[in-house]
Amino acid sequence: MTPQPNPQLGAAVKAADRAHVFHSWSAQELIDPPAVAGAEGSYFWDYDGNRYLDFTSGLVFTNIGYQHPKVVAAIQAQAATMTTFAPAFAVEARSEAARLIAERTPGDLDKIFFTNAGADAVEHAVRMARLHTGRTKVLSAYRSYHGGTQQAINLTGDPRRWASDSGSAGVVRFWAPFLYRSRFYAENERQECERALQHLEDTIVFEGPQTVAAIILETIPGTAGIMTPPPGYLAGVREICDRYGIVFILDEVMAGFGRTGKWFAVDHFEGVVPDLMTFAKGVNSGYVPLGGVAISGAVAETFARRPYPGGLTYSGHPLACAAAVATINVMEDEGVVENAARLGADVIGPGLADLAERHPSVGEVRGLGMFWALELVRNRETREPLVPYNATGEANAPMAAFGAAAKKHGLWPFINMNRTHVVPPCTLTEAEAKEGLAALDAALTEADAHVA
Amino acid sequence: MTPQPNPQLGAAVKAADRAHVFHSWSAQELIDPPAVAGAEGSYFWDYDGNRYLDFTSGLVFTNIGYQHPKVVAAIQAQAATMTTFAPAFAVEARSEAARLIAERTPGDLDKIFFTNAGADAVEHAVRMARLHTGRTKVLSAYRSYHGGTQQAINLTGDPRRWASDSGSAGVVRFWAPFLYRSRFYAENERQECERALQHLEDTIVFEGPQTVAAIILETIPGTAGIMTPPPGYLAGVREICDRYGIVFILDEVMAGFGRTGKWFAVDHFEGVVPDLMTFAKGVNSGYVPLGGVAISGAVAETFARRPYPGGLTYSGHPLACAAAVATINVMEDEGVVENAARLGADVIGPGLADLAERHPSVGEVRGLGMFWALELVRNRETREPLVPYNATGEANAPMAAFGAAAKKHGLWPFINMNRTHVVPPCTLTEAEAKEGLAALDAALTEADAHVA
Repeated sequence: MTPQPNPQLGAAVKAADRAHVFHSWSAQELIDPPAVAGAEGSYFWDYDGNRYLDFTSGLVFTNIGYQHPKVVAAIQAQAATMTTFAPAFAVEARSEAARLIAERTPGDLDKIFFTNAGADAVEHAVRMARLHTGRTKVLSAYRSYHGGTQQAINLTGDPRRWASDSGSAGVVRFWAPFLYRSRFYAENERQECERALQHLEDTIVFEGPQTVAAIILETIPGTAGIMTPPPGYLAGVREICDRYGIVFILDEVMAGFGRTGKWFAVDHFEGVVPDLMTFAKGVNSGYVPLGGVAISGAVAETFARRPYPGGLTYSGHPLACAAAVATINVMEDEGVVENAARLGADVIGPGLADLAERHPSVGEVRGLGMFWALELVRNRETREPLVPYNATGEANAPMAAFGAAAKKHGLWPFINMNRTHVVPPCTLTEAEAKEGLAALDAALTEADAHVA
Repeated sequence: MTPQPNPQLGAAVKAADRAHVFHSWSAQELIDPPAVAGAEGSYFWDYDGNRYLDFTSGLVFTNIGYQHPKVVAAIQAQAATMTTFAPAFAVEARSEAARLIAERTPGDLDKIFFTNAGADAVEHAVRMARLHTGRTKVLSAYRSYHGGTQQAINLTGDPRRWASDSGSAGVVRFWAPFLYRSRFYAENERQECERALQHLEDTIVFEGPQTVAAIILETIPGTAGIMTPPPGYLAGVREICDRYGIVFILDEVMAGFGRTGKWFAVDHFEGVVPDLMTFAKGVNSGYVPLGGVAISGAVAETFARRPYPGGLTYSGHPLACAAAVATINVMEDEGVVENAARLGADVIGPGLADLAERHPSVGEVRGLGMFWALELVRNRETREPLVPYNATGEANAPMAAFGAAAKKHGLWPFINMNRTHVVPPCTLTEAEAKEGLAALDAALTEADAHVA
């Protein structure tokens, strides 16, 4: 599976990268991007012969793992017949992808507007909501991520927004439930839920409900920490939206397409159907850039006889759509969603709980399916994070040491602030899960050293 | 080349499209998207056996035509080895694409930030400019298009902006030179140029130069009408930017990668180098979604030791980058840029001039390479457009009739307001050019009927 090392080619790839590639979210001279030579299933390897179990799924997008042969074949077949075509036409792969997605989205989310990725899906969902309601403001949560373009980053509730935040006209942020770090002084989930809903409604009432176009939430916030909302919260938000005529947008860019052990995270919350739902990543495992918005009947009706004023050159790109068709069929045929549910419940969940028992640096384990977070702390009582919010350099050293240790043990970890997320492909095997848990076990010893 | 008709499959593709695909820029119930069955080179065909010469290049992106076998093969090969990988790594296809692009961009535009398409390229270029200067305002031209996301559409100077335009905080629009419809009361290009520069500088002075982060211009405006700026204009803008410490952004999403008969449109203007240049479309002929920003040394230096606060999951997507590598190599090896230049100068330009002589509805022919516009008018003296600005329905009937006539003659035309653009693939043959000109000749007779 791992080919011969080729450090010379690795050095050339890296040299050209350093000369010409400008990287996301980085100080260009302070990074040293590792050169990756290949990838398959749950693993990737570098040019020096090092192989890593990928507990990040890239950036939480390779839900079917790397290089699934059926999806690769489908991309090759589509490339051979119709690689690309303009969006104003009906194209077989586009029609079929839309049908397969619409069959799986909840309720009447039956029209699919395709974008290139998650950020522009959010941009367009917000535009639809504003035009549907004739209102301006959008409410979003602290502890969220909605994308890197200007509107999407201004809806984002993490520090990646700060540098581009000019005061966020039209955006109002609120606090979603998070019992482990409750600021509603709640003692249990029911209380956290009630108080978070009260806080949301208070915010709307004081903002002026008739000024609020939409509420956008990640169904289960992803990079912000994988906080599954307490039972009743999303139903409560739905009810508030209905009461005030507000469009409810669920962002399933990271949580959708099997990640949580169901097709969509919202499927865990019976009866909850948003008005708009954004997706990307898992829709085709990121094999070709693709995202989109699933649109309810009511919002679609607004644009039935009045033009929707938005679009993009690659909307419904045939190659991307063919990859989505193949990915969805693979997930269906091979029970990928069920695998994520089962492995999460039977292996990863219990395995992480076991690690938490033995490692004092683990403050909380949260998650489901292939979507887990370990909150690392200096002190389990005070819950003081292992590193401060948005720490860099020396202040971040404990997390950096944890990450280096994981890599030394052959595991590529997902790290955000004081957390590591366990977000492997949904095709992970039980043996791979155990291999990863063992590597985490070793790496957490590094974190334990910083416990007060 | 055209396979057997298959109207039954066509009907099924269309039915699924109508049930589930939400289309760009459209009132969903008022459109009837044609189902396309296949495409090759400069042609595509539907399921009923109709074949069209594509004078639109999709949405002006298939610069090497449809299904170029070498690029198809490169996509298939990359799919077989590494379809996707996260952006924080060095990847061979990504490094190579960046190197090939940086070698062709002018001046010191040597760092490439990859995006998914043109809109997010513009979003990120604007962010870079704001952070580089510490200023807020961006100046953009009326008669422009910069993309469909919120920041990009607010920079756009055409009616597609209106529905999303909340007053455009941070955006100031100005008028670029356009002698055919001069509002500077100019009598020649030199005068138009001087007065347009004076207008731009006046606008900056009155806005407050220290508040202006960037000026963004399409090097040669595309959908807005293919108005090549007069000699000296872009050099004048460059000079104004230097004088006031403003970042100069050239948008080459449509005009770049061979479209004008040079690698970039800016290459027609000796000595002009922007600080940032956006690209997409032609970079890989839209075979896989890809865009980007080419970054000058000075702007890159701003983010050398300070993180650039922006990014995206599919930045430098390996499949998209492999398609770019193959496309650029094909363009180089097969003289595609030279073909565009030669055919534009020797066949299309003279052919369109000939049509203008014989058809009173043609008010002006403008362009170069594979990038031409015919301005259709009711009256050559008054230059009254054949249809009013942003006309729909009955008011737009003359242009609709022109379009229908072109299709009847086997030509798929690009139509925007009162113009038809001649924007075929840069790989067009002389025979195809003549076939297209003949179809235009026939279709223009429809337009002539509306001349006063």
